[in-house]
Parts: sequence; C-alpha cells; structure tokens
Amino acid sequence: MHKYWGEIQDPVYGYIYITQPEKTIIDSYPVQRLHRLKQLAGAEYVYPAANHTRFEHSLGVMNLAGLCCENSNLAEHLTKDELQTLRFAALLHDVGHGPFSHIYEHLLVKLNKTHEDLTRWIIEKSELKDKLQALGQDPNTVAKLAVGELGIQGKNFLDQIIQSAFDVDKLDFIVRDTYHTGAKYGYIDVFRLIHALDVLDGNLAVDLGALSALESLILARIESFKSIYFHRVGRAAQIMIAMAMENAKDELGLVDFKTPEEYLALNDYTVWAMLKKSAKSRAIIENPENRRLMKCAYEQTFYVKDKTVTSIFAVEEIRDQIRDKIAGKAKVPAEAVVIDVPTVPSVPYHHSILMQPMEVPVFYKTHSGERVPQRLSDVSGIFEVLKGFINILRVYTDEANREKVAAAATDILGEIPSSAKISY
Amino acid sequence: MHKYWGEIQDPVYGYIYITQPEKTIIDSYPVQRLHRLKQLAGAEYVYPAANHTRFEHSLGVMNLAGLCCENSNLAEHLTKDELQTLRFAALLHDVGHGPFSHIYEHLLVKLNKTHEDLTRWIIEKSELKDKLQALGQDPNTVAKLAVGELGIQGKNFLDQIIQSAFDVDKLDFIVRDTYHTGAKYGYIDVFRLIHALDVLDGNLAVDLGALSALESLILARIESFKSIYFHRVGRAAQIMIAMAMENAKDELGLVDFKTPEEYLALNDYTVWAMLKKSAKSRAIIENPENRRLMKCAYEQTFYVKDKTVTSIFAVEEIRDQIRDKIAGKAKVPAEAVVIDVPTVPSVPYHHSILMQPMEVPVFYKTHSGERVPQRLSDVSGIFEVLKGFINILRVYTDEANREKVAAAATDILGEIPSSAKISY
Amino acid sequence: MHKYWGEIQDPVYGYIYITQPEKTIIDSYPVQRLHRLKQLAGAEYVYPAANHTRFEHSLGVMNLAGLCCENSNLAEHLTKDELQTLRFAALLHDVGHGPFSHIYEHLLVKLNKTHEDLTRWIIEKSELKDKLQALGQDPNTVAKLAVGELGIQGKNFLDQIIQSAFDVDKLDFIVRDTYHTGAKYGYIDVFRLIHALDVLDGNLAVDLGALSALESLILARIESFKSIYFHRVGRAAQIMIAMAMENAKDELGLVDFKTPEEYLALNDYTVWAMLKKSAKSRAIIENPENRRLMKCAYEQTFYVKDKTVTSIFAVEEIRDQIRDKIAGKAKVPAEAVVIDVPTVPSVPYHHSILMQPMEVPVFYKTHSGERVPQRLSDVSGIFEVLKGFINILRVYTDEANREKVAAAATDILGEIPSSAKISY
Amino acid sequence: MHKYWGEIQDPVYGYIYITQPEKTIIDSYPVQRLHRLKQLAGAEYVYPAANHTRFEHSLGVMNLAGLCCENSNLAEHLTKDELQTLRFAALLHDVGHGPFSHIYEHLLVKLNKTHEDLTRWIIEKSELKDKLQALGQDPNTVAKLAVGELGIQGKNFLDQIIQSAFDVDKLDFIVRDTYHTGAKYGYIDVFRLIHALDVLDGNLAVDLGALSALESLILARIESFKSIYFHRVGRAAQIMIAMAMENAKDELGLVDFKTPEEYLALNDYTVWAMLKKSAKSRAIIENPENRRLMKCAYEQTFYVKDKTVTSIFAVEEIRDQIRDKIAGKAKVPAEAVVIDVPTVPSVPYHHSILMQPMEVPVFYKTHSGERVPQRLSDVSGIFEVLKGFINILRVYTDEANREKVAAAATDILGEIPSSAKISY
Repeated sequence: MHKYWGEIQDPVYGYIYITQPEKTIIDSYPVQRLHRLKQLAGAEYVYPAANHTRFEHSLGVMNLAGLCCENSNLAEHLTKDELQTLRFAALLHDVGHGPFSHIYEHLLVKLNKTHEDLTRWIIEKSELKDKLQALGQDPNTVAKLAVGELGIQGKNFLDQIIQSAFDVDKLDFIVRDTYHTGAKYGYIDVFRLIHALDVLDGNLAVDLGALSALESLILARIESFKSIYFHRVGRAAQIMIAMAMENAKDELGLVDFKTPEEYLALNDYTVWAMLKKSAKSRAIIENPENRRLMKCAYEQTFYVKDKTVTSIFAVEEIRDQIRDKIAGKAKVPAEAVVIDVPTVPSVPYHHSILMQPMEVPVFYKTHSGERVPQRLSDVSGIFEVLKGFINILRVYTDEANREKVAAAATDILGEIPSSAKISY
Repeated sequence: MHKYWGEIQDPVYGYIYITQPEKTIIDSYPVQRLHRLKQLAGAEYVYPAANHTRFEHSLGVMNLAGLCCENSNLAEHLTKDELQTLRFAALLHDVGHGPFSHIYEHLLVKLNKTHEDLTRWIIEKSELKDKLQALGQDPNTVAKLAVGELGIQGKNFLDQIIQSAFDVDKLDFIVRDTYHTGAKYGYIDVFRLIHALDVLDGNLAVDLGALSALESLILARIESFKSIYFHRVGRAAQIMIAMAMENAKDELGLVDFKTPEEYLALNDYTVWAMLKKSAKSRAIIENPENRRLMKCAYEQTFYVKDKTVTSIFAVEEIRDQIRDKIAGKAKVPAEAVVIDVPTVPSVPYHHSILMQPMEVPVFYKTHSGERVPQRLSDVSGIFEVLKGFINILRVYTDEANREKVAAAATDILGEIPSSAKISY
Repeated sequence: MHKYWGEIQDPVYGYIYITQPEKTIIDSYPVQRLHRLKQLAGAEYVYPAANHTRFEHSLGVMNLAGLCCENSNLAEHLTKDELQTLRFAALLHDVGHGPFSHIYEHLLVKLNKTHEDLTRWIIEKSELKDKLQALGQDPNTVAKLAVGELGIQGKNFLDQIIQSAFDVDKLDFIVRDTYHTGAKYGYIDVFRLIHALDVLDGNLAVDLGALSALESLILARIESFKSIYFHRVGRAAQIMIAMAMENAKDELGLVDFKTPEEYLALNDYTVWAMLKKSAKSRAIIENPENRRLMKCAYEQTFYVKDKTVTSIFAVEEIRDQIRDKIAGKAKVPAEAVVIDVPTVPSVPYHHSILMQPMEVPVFYKTHSGERVPQRLSDVSGIFEVLKGFINILRVYTDEANREKVAAAATDILGEIPSSAKISY
Repeated sequence: MHKYWGEIQDPVYGYIYITQPEKTIIDSYPVQRLHRLKQLAGAEYVYPAANHTRFEHSLGVMNLAGLCCENSNLAEHLTKDELQTLRFAALLHDVGHGPFSHIYEHLLVKLNKTHEDLTRWIIEKSELKDKLQALGQDPNTVAKLAVGELGIQGKNFLDQIIQSAFDVDKLDFIVRDTYHTGAKYGYIDVFRLIHALDVLDGNLAVDLGALSALESLILARIESFKSIYFHRVGRAAQIMIAMAMENAKDELGLVDFKTPEEYLALNDYTVWAMLKKSAKSRAIIENPENRRLMKCAYEQTFYVKDKTVTSIFAVEEIRDQIRDKIAGKAKVPAEAVVIDVPTVPSVPYHHSILMQPMEVPVFYKTHSGERVPQRLSDVSGIFEVLKGFINILRVYTDEANREKVAAAATDILGEIPSSAKISY
C-alpha cells in the first residue's frame, strides 16, 4: 500500500490519490497553466456545461494510468519506479497544448510541429526538467513516455497505456467529456476495461471477457465524435477562433515563442484578450461573443472502409476548388464560404485520431489459461463496422448567405437531409 | 396540466405522477401481484442486485407512455381519454406473466398460449374488467392495446407505443435492468428519444436528429441481451427452474388453472414453495438454492444476417440429435446434457424478441419542415450491422461432467474460446 | 495485491472482488438463502423499487469491511488472516435473520432471542461451521465477530467495524436503501468516511477532517428512518405481516425450529406461501395482496433528548390502555386499533438502533501529527441536536374506521397536522 | 403545452427547453459574456473540476423558475405572460456580476454598489433593453424581478421564487456546484421541493410533507458553504485575486466603467490578462499561477444564534487591530497577515447570504385541505439548530511565516485543532 500525500476530489472517479512527488509536479507552472486551457474549446456553444480543463483531465489520466497498474496482470511487469514514471508521463501528456487546445494546432502545422512535440520540449526544457530531476526522474524518459514513444523492448505496453488505440487518455476524455457536457453516450465501464488488460509479448491486450465493455467503448467514441467533437455548431465556433488566430498571428506574435516560458504564457485567457486587441481578429472574435456563429449550409456524413475518400478531401487545392465553385454559384465572395472536413488536416484542425480505427489487440483464454490473440474484427461484428472512417463534409457560411450557399452546395454536392437541430 | 392524485418514487425517473383512476387500477390484485414476479428471475445468480419486479417496471412503462404524449407531435393526435386508455394499457401490459416471467412461457407453449394472451384474458375477465368499466374504460379496448393489437386505422402509433421495435416497454426495461443489475450498457437517452418521436401517416417514427441516441439504444439492447438476458450463468439458473416446473407441472397443477384467479395465484413466491414440495422438482430446485448451477461446457456466439441458421436450431429433433451425439461421445447420460439456443423456441424459453431486428421507422426534416421517411439501414452503418441476429449455442452439463462434455462438444461443434468469467 | 477469484457486479460499488475462499462461503446454503430475504420487507408498498435482498447487502458489507482495511491507518493493525476473518464476519453478519427480516423479530422476542443470537448459532452449527474450518477459520471467532462481540483486548476496532455507531453495516444500508428506493437522502461520501478512519487505543475513530461527511451521514440516517424505515405506509404493511405471523405461528410452526436447517427453511417466499394456507393468517395477508393497508389515523413525531418519553411508550400496558381508550371513544373494537411506536419494543418490532444515538468517536490532528480525541457534540452543533431520539407515535386502524379513530385519537392525544401524503 | 424552440443539454437537468424569445435573449452579449465568468472563481484550486460558469447556472435558474410554474399550485396564480417575464428575470439575475463574480464585489463596495444594482442597470440600459422591448417585455419589470424587488401586492411569490431564503437560485447552485466539484453534500431532491411549493396569501410556502427534503436542503447548504464556498484553500486563492485587483484597480481602471458596455468588457479572461500587465498586480497573480497560495495559520469555526459575534468582526478597525497584534507578536510585517471572516463584509468579499438563516415559510394541510402556516423551527429540530450563523475566523499568511503566525494567533485567539487536510 502506497503512502499518499493526499487526495483530490474528482467528480468522475471520486478521489484521486496523489503522492508527495506528484504534488510537486502538479503545483508546477506548466501543469497549473492547464487550469486555463479548456478541454473542449468551442463546445460550450453547444453544451454550456462543457467548461472542464486539461488540468482535471490530466489528473484523470494519471489516475487511470495508476489504476491500470493495480491490475495484477500489469503490476508484475513493473517496478515501483516505473509506475511513478508512468504516472508522471500520464500527468504531463498534455502540457504541450496551446491556447484552445486542438484549435491552436492549426498554427503549429505551419511550424511543422504538433502539440506532442511541444509536450516533449516543455518537459525537457522548462522548470519541469529540474523538478523531475530533483525527484530522481529522468526528464527525457518522462518526455518520451508522455507522448508514447519510450520504445523499451519488451515493455511496449508502457507506451500503449499512454498512447494507443486503447489508452487511458481516451478512456478519461470519453467519460469526462460525457460527464461535463451531459451528452449521454460515453458512460462506459472503465473499471471493467482496465481490469481486463493484460500484457502479451510486451504489448497491451484486452481479454475478450470484456467484449461488451469494449464494444460499448467503441460506440461511445464514435457517438462522442459525432455529438461533441464534430458537432456542427461547436465546430463553427472553433473555425472562427482558428480564423481569428490565423489572421492576427503575426501581429500578435502567436507563434513567435522562443522559450518554453514564452509558449506557456499563451493560454485561453491571455489569447482571448489578445484577439480582442488586434484589428485583424477583433471583428471575428466578437461574433462568438455575441453568438453569431457561422451556419452550416450543407452537411454530409458517411462512413467508408478505406482512406481514399478522406484523402481526396485532404488536398487543400481540391477543397479550395469546391469552395470557389460553390461561392461562384451562390454569388457570394469565396471568403464567405468554408469547407470543413474535420477528419482531414483542414481548417481549422483535424482529429487525426479518427483516421486510426481502434485496432485494439484482444485475446481469449483457454480453459488451461493460455492466452490466444485474436483479431477483434473476427469476433465483433460491431467492431468490424465501426472500424471504418467517419467522414463529415460541411459547408459553412454566414447567416445572411445561408440559403444561397445551401442551394449552391446541394446543387454541386448532392441533396442532403437537414434533420439537424440536435442541440442548441 | 393534469391534476394528479399523487406521486410514486422511482429510482429511474424520480417521481411517477398518477391520477386517482390509475391508483384504483394499481391497487387491484392483478397489478399488486406483480410485486411477486421478478423482472429477471434467475439473473440474481449473476447480478445480486437484480431483484426488481414487474410491478415497478409496469409503473415505469405507464410513465413513459404518458411522457410520449407530452411530446406535442403526439399530443395533437390524442384526446385526453385516449391518453388515459394508453396509460392503462401500458400499466397492464404485463399482468399476464406467469411465475418467473419468461421461464413460465415454456409451460404456456404447451397450451398454445403466450403471456400476451393471458394479459388480454386477465384484463377482460378478472376484477380488472369491473374496475375499468367503473372508470369509464372499455376493458376490451384496454386489453387489445395492452398487447399492441388495437389496430385503429390512422392511429397505429398507439399500438406501436406499447408494442413495436421501439416501444416504451423496451425503453423502460433496458434502463431499469441496467440500473438494478449495475451492468453499464443501458444508460441511454430515453428523454431525447421520446422527444424525437413523431407520427407519420398514423405511425410512430423517430426524427433522425436523435440518431446518436437511437444507435446507442440499439447497441444497449444487444449488449443487454448478451450480458444480462443471455448470460450463461443466469441462463443456467433459468433452465433449472424451467426443468423443475416441467417435471412437476402435472403433480403441482401448474397449468391446470381455469379462472384468472387461479392463474393469478401463481407467482414466484408460491411456485417456489410448491416446487420444494414435489419429489419431482425438489432435487432440481435445491441446486440453485445451494448455487449448484449447471455449467456451460461449450459456447458459440455468432451474428447472422438471415434466419436460416437460427431456424435449424429451432427444430427440436436437430437439437436432440446434437445432444445425443455429444452425450454419446462424452459417455454421459443424454439427460445430463442440455443444448440451449436462447433465440429459438427451445428449453427453457425463447426471447423471440431478438428475432425481430429493430426496424425503427425514421425520417428527416427538410429545411421547409417536411418529414421525409428513411430506411434506418441507409443512414446508419451501425444499425445495418446490428440488425442481424444474435445466435448463441450453448451446451450445459453438471460440474462433474464438464470436462468430458466440453471435449465432446468441441469435437463435434468446433473449437471455441473460453474467455468466460464475465461476472459471478 | 490480493489474487482475487473474480468480481461480482454491484450497482452501488461497481465491482466487488472476492477470493476463492469467499466464493465457497457465498455459495453456501445459509448465504444463498439471503436471496429470498428482502432487506426492507413492506417498504415496496411505498417504494416499488425497494426489492433488494440481504444477499446483496451482505456482499456490500463485506466489501466495505475490506475497503476499511485498505486504509493504511487500519491496515497496520491487521494481519492478512485477521482481514479474511473480518470479511467473513461481515459477509455472515445477517445470516440469522428470519423471514421478512426485522418483522420476524417480533416472534423471536417471545423466544428471548434476537437475530444476532441466531446468526451466531447458524455460523457455529450449520454447514458454515465445516466450510469455515476447512478454510482454516475458527467458526466461533467468526461468529462472535459477526455480531461485534469478539472482544480482543487492544483490537476493539474489529468489533466496531462490524457493530458500532459507525459500522459498515449502517454505511452500506444507508447508501443501498437510498439507491433502491430512490429516496434521495442517503447519498453520503462513504469513501471519504472510510478513508478518515483511524485506530486510537485500539478503538475506531474518525478524523474530524471528514466532519462534513460525518454530519451528512448522521442526517442521512435520520431522514432514512423517517422516510423509509418508519414510513407510515410501509410500517402499516409490516404491522399486518407481523399480525399474520403472530396469529398463525403455532398452527404453522413458525417458531418450532430445532435445527439451523429447519430455521433456514423459513424465508420470505416459503412463509408468504404458508401464511396463505392457514385460516388464521389468510384473511390478514390478503389485505396487502390487494393493497388494503391499515390507515394511519393519527401521527405525532417528536425529538427528545432523553429516553423518558420513549420508555413510557415501551410499557405494553400503557400502550394497551391508550388503545382501549381510543377504541372506546371511537366506538370500534379494540382489535381494530393499533398503537405503533416504532422506536420501542412494540408491535410489530422495534428498531432499537435509534435508541442509541450515534456516539461516533472522533479526533483531530495537531500540526505535529498528534491525534486528540474530541466529543463530537462539542464540535458539531448538528450532531448535538441530531443525537436526540426520534419518537413517532401512530394510531392505525382500517379504512372504514379512520375518521372515527382519528377524531378519538386527536381528542385523547392532541391535535396534529396531516400534511401527510409523502409518497404512495 | 408550450411550443419550444429547442432544447439545451444540461448535465444537471438533462434538457432545458427554451422558447424562441428566450433564445434571442440568451444569444445577447450580456448573457453570452457569462460564458467567461466562472461560478466559483478560486474553487478550482481545491476542486479541479469546478470550472462551471454563470452562463450554465443562469440557464438552470431559468429552468427551475419554469418548473416551479408547472406546479399547479403556482400555475393558477400566473398568466402566460407573467411566466415568461419570470423566466427572463431568472435568466438575467446574474448579468450584473463582475470578473471572478463575488470577488469583484470587494471593489463594488467602494462604489456603494452591489452586483444586484448592476444587474438592474444592465437590463435597463444595455442592448437587453431593446431586445426585451422588442419581445413585448418591460425591461424595468424584468430588472426589478431579476433582483427580487418587483413587489406586486398579492404576488410576492414572484420575487420569492427569484430571491428569498428558498429561491431557485440557491436550488440550482447547490446542486450544480455539487455536480461540478464532486463534493457529495448537495444532492438534494429539487423536484420534490418544487412540487411541494404553494402560495399562501401571495407568498411562497413549502408543504411540510416535504420536510425531509427541506431539512436535507438546509444541511446541504451549510455543508456546501463549509466545504466549497468557505474552503480554506479556495478562500486563499480568492483573497489573492482580490488583493491583485485592489492593488491595480486604478492603474487598470477596473472600476472606471461609465457604460454597461465598458462594464461588460470586464470578465475573468480579460481581467486575468490585465492583472498580468500591471506591476502592481503581476507578482500577486503569479502566485496562484504557480499554486503558491497563502496558508491558513489559524482557523476557528463556530455557530452562534445571534449576530453579535459576527458584528464585532464586521468592524474593519477591529480586524485590523487583531491583525496588527498577531503580526507584532509574530514579528512579521502587518501586510503579511490577513484576517478573513467570510461571513462579514471583509476582505475580499462576504457571503452575506449566510447572515440570513433560511426562514422558509412552511405549512401543513389538514384532512379537510386547509393549509395552516407553521414556524419551521417549531417542527424541525434540525432547522432550529442550523438556522444559527456559521462564523469562520481565519488568519492567513505566506508559507514562510506560517509557523510564527500560527503560534502568535493561537496565543492571542486561543488553541485550535488542525485536522485540516480536507482536500487538495
């Protein structure tokens, strides 16, 4: 039994118990900053209660990483030190996020960086470095594990706990986003899943005894994407924030940071205030402040089994062509039309995550206790269909041009339904 | 706003408000008897908390029927009287159930009856008849609606609220069974679904705006079947109770009832006590009393798109042949082996319900407000796969013969996994 | 980390992990019988969902006893063997309950026995004895601990975990009864309370850091008594069952058991069926079957700081005098009137528990870590008021005589309000 | 049945249904601004998940105001127009809050204003005025009702729904704050309470049939104050934010607003960014950013029946004297010591709310249906004790001086316990 320093109240898990060294890292500036990074920036326009931050999510991910290792199947592969390293990595996996989280990645793309790159940079170069060292931790090891790239031969499951089709990051955010949005699709059986984990040849795998929980997770993930992350209205807000940052990034120096400290000074609060200062972003940002959001004039959702269709939309030129064609037909300026395909690296950002179907390694146990690996597709018809790709193609414009753009888009892209009013 | 007589506390919906006439019917003997009919007889061997009764379920179904009609799309098609009739029908839809609910249907089959037949009989012939008449209700109308066979031209939605692929019976039991078992698969968004209902040409249909909630319902139903209704251990208990009733039915007169009152005297309490009296059932029933349940020696779960495979197993002679072959190979008496296929009319009973995929009528609304019917399969890849049939083939035997029967069954039916220990 | 045999799904705690030896005892007949003993017999007439059994409660109590010992303050005082003994004692603490639980105690009183006496008897004389011995447990030790009378010098906290003002029995039933009734008063912070436990001089004590959780527990207990255990309608049902058992006890041999096995054959199912056989009980028991319950014609609730008033009502002769006086004035037969004071040993039974205010030992920690015992009354104004005694005085009669008896009782006992319709 | 425009998902109530006019007001700038005003600024240092905003709270309050009026007791006193006015008033009751909500009131005090004054000002002078008028609403009426000062003879209950000892503001925040913090003390039965409301002589009153729910509410409120609003760590964060605003208010012009628009430009985001610009506040605000919070060196909690003790601490000079004496004895600068008495108008702000015990008007119904007013104290021992005043006296200082100040404070104010580590 560990000696914990104390507990933190969490509405999802009740109490999260933390050690003294963990308190030191939690109290550091890069982690405390996560108090001012919302988990789902933009979603509050749809789900008013979705104001949770990356701070509480990070604690949750650390907690689940720890719970995984109370599963005796995993515990036997881990030293006490490795467990502490794993919990630190889980705690720090999101410290590299920028203001408005994923929305900022649209700017990072231009720097050829991802938020994971920045996570490593911050762990290795900010005050976290010294604090981790003082606690006997190797910052480089923590940094690599925080992005799932530790790569220890025979212990790949460590990376997979943090970053894989079935990682504690996803488990936490699905449940936590459901809790705070009030959307009902993500109440999955996290504890059953964690208890069903095992290590096969160094890799994480799930016992098929928990197949129902696993299938529920897979559906929960899809429905959460459709209802929360890709919600047409939330997405409209995100596009507008991305546009404001894009327009004013040079004037405001949004990507001019040289040190971790300069980067860390950017958060939802400071950047929102900055965007109101620049003439290039003010007009845009005043729109969400008055809930004047772009309207979705056209929407098409489809599932496909391969990436071909998705890849087509990934080409910026193709998207631009479609936009121009629609704008031309609708007789509105091209700038008034936005083509949004949330699954591809498009404006404002992509959830590449959905490009990777959840190839969760699974196994069954024979009566004699042998663990036999399986392909999830072979045992789960549900998985087989859900492993495809969701594609959503949307055309946004402003309220005034909605009718015209809708007609033009329908003409060009085909008739679609509009049973739309899912939520506010 | 109705004047309610009072409210009944319900853990699923908070409070259920009832009128004075409803109180009269609730207090009748046929409804009060449902206090002694468990919703999920046998499931308590897997889920110790699953002790809820058909009484609370019946109140829940009445409540949801009433909520449907607070949806203004439906309300405009209904008079106040029809609403009260509908609520009575919902309240009484299960009064025909016998002891241990579905398990008793195995005996009813021999009488060429279903529990629905008995529901009608009881509403029309017991004290319910007089009480309903005194309240200005036509017992025959209530009886027909209680089993979804009222058949009013242009008002089919009334029957469909009570009995269809998307009825309030299913909505209530999925959520309620989840609540009382603690299984996590059935937390669906009932209120969203009810709010999305509409009437198209007299038929109930669901607005595709609630597609996520609908897909979640469909998965919840499948997972609930796999985890609760078809759980291998709960099913073993049910088989044993069915056998005990089958063996002693003539001696105990379990199907000799002539009047509604004689039938209603049978409930879980009285029949359990009776089964302990007859030499023909006592030994069997003492097994679950000591938690000596039959063991599953072989299990195969599969999904199929058509009914062919299922139909094969529906033939009793084929099942008997398989049983004899396995018993022969295992060198155990044929009586020690039970072939169980819960989706077909087999020992002990079948959930024919799963034979009917959820063909929920859906529609989308155009911008101009027109409602356009759709095929759910066309818009939902999830539905398309889940609408298939679940088939489970199991071979049960007693603890002592497990190994032998497992080997023989595997030999005859093919190798299968055993990652089994889903729950106690 | 323990090696668990498996887990049992529980809606209150999620999963309850059990060891192989625990499975052996859980599967025994005396424990399995608890499936047919409701936790709150009679309450289903008020709270239709309150059908939970002593079986699931017993698992819950074992689970909490185990969780207490994961608290490192307690763990350091316990060997692994003592922990297993404690969990067995918790699991078995209710095996001595009779049909309809507390209601049956009215009959036991005549034998000068309590259900605790029978719990010890069954653990020491039934099959449990052999099974415990085979597992290396001393049945006598388990039996004494199961009723909180082990009395090991310096380890009184063991008894107190099972039986004290702050024991895991109460913690489980408050939360579980809330869960299954849907009454909202018992959602307390069990895990915080368990984490706040410590051992002072061998005794259990609660850290005042958890004072809010403790005060909430105390109120939850009071409100649960008022709303569930002492509910006027549930109490009416219980009185009627007690009367039926009392009337027919000789004819049916309800207290003639000589062996544990004969006693254990009595449960809610068998006794309900028996009560329908005897002419002496049939008419009574048909009343709840038709929901014709006695009506409360008069009710007075009061709190007092000492036991004097309560003691007066404890005298059967005084209650009989009051009854006769009211019946005389109302001109109804004395048998038609029942005086009920649930806190005293009256018809049908008493919750002596409320006679013992929750004198929970508490302490605070100084900065230097010293633990200083406190009187809870001194630090909690809430406790100070709530530690008094609840007294409820009710006069029941049948529907027909309600008005007359109400008038007579009001005349004799004083005017009272009737803002009564708390629930169905 | 109303025709709703649509629904908003809310984790506390499921769905909140809104009309088209309500959507217009919700989308206005003064209401949308509430997205950037946290409900419990500072609490996130204790409860990481407490990031909910006044926006979702305002929707919740509107929703409860509407639900009250579905109670037929109230509905009969209201026209449809009054109901809409009431819902607008509920929605707008918090639009006058400043950055960090209650913390900003410390600055408002110097202007002789409260946030309620500003609420009226904004409703009557901002864009809300025109929008309300366009919807046929009188802004002045809405403004007065929003602060509970409409004062219509015979309809005082309207004001009381919005602002009284038992108003929908409190009901919403107790449940919502519990939901988002994860603290377990506030799960009260809101729907039972709302259903128990009635109008007596134009005033709101609660039927004593809901006494248990009412007592639970009263305790929940107290425990929420102790655990959330007055938590020592959250309070430390709030004091520091108040100090930063106080120090820099002239330089940053924090109270120089002349128009509603200038005032509304202040929110958590913009002011946090501003506080980082001024040399006078930067150093202070960097402390919470690094989780360097003032430490509580001394704490005393007590309940009193009258306001005398509280009044003493309300005198700033007395608090200053105590501070100087402690600082002198501890040999630290006076500025390093803060005396905090959250129940009085002290630094940084006061919850005057707790000064007003919950004098909830109650009544009971006689058998004949007459409603007889009661004093809650007379029927509830729990209320009698809880209606007293909570007083908390704390002495804060920085980490380095903690020991010295603790010793000095203890010397001067008396020994106290320190069983403190309630939560992170």
